[in-house]
Amino acid sequence: MSEPLRYLLSDDEMPTAWYNLVPDLPAPPPPALHPGTLEPAGPDDFAPLFPMDLIMQEVTGDRFVDIPGEVIDIYRLWRATPLHRARRLERALGTPARIYYKYEGTSPAGSHKPNTAVPQAYYNAKAGITKLTTETGAGQWGTALAFACQMFGIECEVWQVRASYDQKPYRRAMMEAFGATVHPSPSDVTEYGRKLLEQDPSNPGSLGIAISEAVAVAAQDPEIRYALGSVLNHVLMHQTIIGEEALLQMAKAGDTPDLIVGCTGGGSNFGGLTFPFLREKLAGKMSPTILAVEPAACPSLTRGTYAYDFGDTAGMTPLMKMHTLGHDFIPDPIHAGGLRYHGMSPLVSHVYELGLIEAEAIQQSDCFAAGVQFARTEGIVPAPEPTHALAATIAEALRCKESGEEKAILTALCGHGMLDMAAYDRYFAGDIVDHDYPEAKVADALTRLPQV
Amino acid sequence: MSEPLRYLLSDDEMPTAWYNLVPDLPAPPPPALHPGTLEPAGPDDFAPLFPMDLIMQEVTGDRFVDIPGEVIDIYRLWRATPLHRARRLERALGTPARIYYKYEGTSPAGSHKPNTAVPQAYYNAKAGITKLTTETGAGQWGTALAFACQMFGIECEVWQVRASYDQKPYRRAMMEAFGATVHPSPSDVTEYGRKLLEQDPSNPGSLGIAISEAVAVAAQDPEIRYALGSVLNHVLMHQTIIGEEALLQMAKAGDTPDLIVGCTGGGSNFGGLTFPFLREKLAGKMSPTILAVEPAACPSLTRGTYAYDFGDTAGMTPLMKMHTLGHDFIPDPIHAGGLRYHGMSPLVSHVYELGLIEAEAIQQSDCFAAGVQFARTEGIVPAPEPTHALAATIAEALRCKESGEEKAILTALCGHGMLDMAAYDRYFAGDIVDHDYPEAKVADALTRLPQV
Repeated sequence: MSEPLRYLLSDDEMPTAWYNLVPDLPAPPPPALHPGTLEPAGPDDFAPLFPMDLIMQEVTGDRFVDIPGEVIDIYRLWRATPLHRARRLERALGTPARIYYKYEGTSPAGSHKPNTAVPQAYYNAKAGITKLTTETGAGQWGTALAFACQMFGIECEVWQVRASYDQKPYRRAMMEAFGATVHPSPSDVTEYGRKLLEQDPSNPGSLGIAISEAVAVAAQDPEIRYALGSVLNHVLMHQTIIGEEALLQMAKAGDTPDLIVGCTGGGSNFGGLTFPFLREKLAGKMSPTILAVEPAACPSLTRGTYAYDFGDTAGMTPLMKMHTLGHDFIPDPIHAGGLRYHGMSPLVSHVYELGLIEAEAIQQSDCFAAGVQFARTEGIVPAPEPTHALAATIAEALRCKESGEEKAILTALCGHGMLDMAAYDRYFAGDIVDHDYPEAKVADALTRLPQV
Repeated sequence: MSEPLRYLLSDDEMPTAWYNLVPDLPAPPPPALHPGTLEPAGPDDFAPLFPMDLIMQEVTGDRFVDIPGEVIDIYRLWRATPLHRARRLERALGTPARIYYKYEGTSPAGSHKPNTAVPQAYYNAKAGITKLTTETGAGQWGTALAFACQMFGIECEVWQVRASYDQKPYRRAMMEAFGATVHPSPSDVTEYGRKLLEQDPSNPGSLGIAISEAVAVAAQDPEIRYALGSVLNHVLMHQTIIGEEALLQMAKAGDTPDLIVGCTGGGSNFGGLTFPFLREKLAGKMSPTILAVEPAACPSLTRGTYAYDFGDTAGMTPLMKMHTLGHDFIPDPIHAGGLRYHGMSPLVSHVYELGLIEAEAIQQSDCFAAGVQFARTEGIVPAPEPTHALAATIAEALRCKESGEEKAILTALCGHGMLDMAAYDRYFAGDIVDHDYPEAKVADALTRLPQV
């Protein structure tokens, strides 16, 4: 009790606006392109997929966007989330570093994903949409959207990567408990899915394929829209509630981060945590190093090409300029399913190109080791995704031990691992395999980049 | 935002003492008896199993016991927990009743169990104990104790009912992630376990058997003690943090409960929620009906005999006067594993005999239906155990709809269902079987009650 272990915000203190990084950047990110004309995509090009409120958020020049009261009402189920000081981990490491983690696992889905699922469901319901389609890998995003759709009384139809659908039935059951319909992908519901199943009935699927199927179903019905769980500007903007809260909480701690670390798959957890701090950095108010950590098996930021590519495998989405391993690249089956995406958020890619953030890739065995050390000191079992950030955090804290530097490190524990215990089981059984950078597979996929 | 949905407590407002109901009762509960002499058991009789601090809490006449700072430090990982107003459920039911639920699922184990696991580990570590043994069914309690032991640097060895060990590997993996050793029970580690396995190598186990094994190992080594997850006075006292917080939160809501509903297995969630309110009731400050809800397949309060019986199957523990179905009664395999115990907490049994609380038994299909309705309105998937309380809550709210009564109902959502999704899966598949009151099995087990 002598040392504060946690910083909370009262309901009154919770931020009431999301933050949009774009207008504060020294240069704007390249626009999305229409996949047919290759001209910059306008709001109308996105209209078959998203309601106009979200399209406007995608392209807005406003620095802040008010969070609707209906969204705040649902956020209150679990927000503001706590910022913890990891004093027990610090002591175990013997580091002079101060480690803070923002914990998003208290949401009904167990991760940060509802931060954007809730506003996406809200704006769609407001626009009279009756059903949302989406993709999901391990099931975190599908669970979050199923929950959010249920809160606003609209249907939810999910295409789950078949390998996960078969191996991880708990997440599917959770989506169904929230009233969603779940298909394994490739499915026989869409033409693209049927084509893939004809070629290979045991196709294990991928996020890119599942996106193609969900997009295809949404595009054909004016009452159905599509929801994406990461990558896009408006998704990252919704997630900035994490960083806005953390800014207030770091101030309560009387501390300023020297290093901010987030894991990156599509980029929404990373952008949500770091963009508000990047604003402060650009304004000269603090000078943290900002580090993105990705899996060695799917290193889009550190090893991908910065080029226009599709968000999905079939090539139905607008083209986005991003770090990509190729839209038909299928990552090895690492356990951090939420980080197995061929591309990186265009906005995260852009700030990386601007030199505003750093990136590194880590092998999953190092990540699980960090996850177990975190669980045994801090008492929370992390999902495999944030163990990437924890591994980098612990490595830096140990460097501080060597150098004597008293750095303040901030990271996001974007979800708990309760539904990922089979992965920990395999780790304890010595059954976790590291995956080398898949050089040949990536080179091959990149030959099929769209010509822009 | 117009209507408050949630009541929080700041760190300063969190209660700093547990409440002991015993001195406020009109009559003291009957004492535990030594299993050999049948004389009232004194502190020394418990010494092979528990450290003296906990034994003193078991028999204390103090009304309040201060929570040590070291325990509060760990509680702060998730406490104070929120009190939610279930407005979306109320609207779906069309009831004039006001429904409040205290949510304990934000703990690192996902349930209320760490409220007592943490102080039990703390007092044992303080007494120089190096290892705790315990039993667990589905794994909620084992996970909580593994977490707590890890926080205080002592070992944890768990006997998990074999049926759950085989069918629910996620909980076992979580205990192992927290560094615990887990055995299926019956195990070949103890003489009693070996005896049972000789008689029947496929014995599926029971909580009573697992307790016998954990007690046997603790009793033989002065550095090892045993921890029980429910039933005993000190366990229920630790759980009163739930009710003490809820009292403050109901006051913030400006409301007073007319009905308080908790599910009962061993009685710790129920006692923890309701005892502080029972104190206020006994003092004439409020007059809620207090209702315990148990599974129809294991109805110790509503159908058991009030008699001295053993807490475990082998008959190693002191005798406790309680509502019991017989210490070797093995309940049908309902999904609410945490409620599958042959006895009821002596203190809950006593207040039931005094007429201070009411009780009813509910079939599990009704409970799952209530759980799904709750998930789809409030957004949290409940564990099977609290769906018993939710079923009774919804039934009462619907009676209020008929009568027009504007009752305030308070219940405890003592855990989320993320690790119980297989049970929901079976419910959606129409595969959930109700279990009649097992009259013949109970009558048979009661013939073996100890003669006192």
